[in-house]
Amino acid sequence: MDRITWSNTGKKIARHAFGTALAREEASLLADFKARAAAAATQDDMWAVYRFLAERDGVIGRKYEFRYSELISLFVLLRAEGWLDEADLAGLRDDKLTMIREGCARWQRHFERGD
Amino acid sequence: MDRITWSNTGKKIARHAFGTALAREEASLLADFKARAAAAATQDDMWAVYRFLAERDGVIGRKYEFRYSELISLFVLLRAEGWLDEADLAGLRDDKLTMIREGCARWQRHFERGD
Repeated sequence: MDRITWSNTGKKIARHAFGTALAREEASLLADFKARAAAAATQDDMWAVYRFLAERDGVIGRKYEFRYSELISLFVLLRAEGWLDEADLAGLRDDKLTMIREGCARWQRHFERGD
Repeated sequence: MDRITWSNTGKKIARHAFGTALAREEASLLADFKARAAAAATQDDMWAVYRFLAERDGVIGRKYEFRYSELISLFVLLRAEGWLDEADLAGLRDDKLTMIREGCARWQRHFERGD
């Protein structure tokens, strides 16, 4: 994967898709946070929301590192998790789209087998 | 202050007052948290709520240490902050009540002078 090259057009599409996925995941987190906070009835519930945010902050921070060398793997993950769909990646070169599609298919098989 | 002694009755009243103040401050924090979370409209608002909880957790944890040697000072603080009132301390020996009252008066003067 370290020999993948990115054209200017590809870089632009990639940056946009990256930003789209991040914005979607953050919007989802905000909605999730508000629902959990609204449902919090006790101190324990409140500190559970706090730990939830701490955990999500760490996960999102680690996941959204924009590095071209890791971008295909990241797009596979974001497709598998549902933060991106095919249309968000339209315009990328076919070899990249194929790698992402194949990566998603491996994920799918992985979960179907229950590994 | 290190020569203050506590009778069994005094200890019981002190532990009860300590618990009452903590429960009030925690209930207030929960209500404050829920109001801030309900008003959160953006990611930034959400992380501001997160930092607010982190800060309150630290402050409350440091404040509510039950040590007899520090209890008069703590009760002065809790009276000054409004988490305890005179009635919560009823039954403590007069010398303790006087020390607490005098401590509160010093706080009062401190803030009136704007130190």
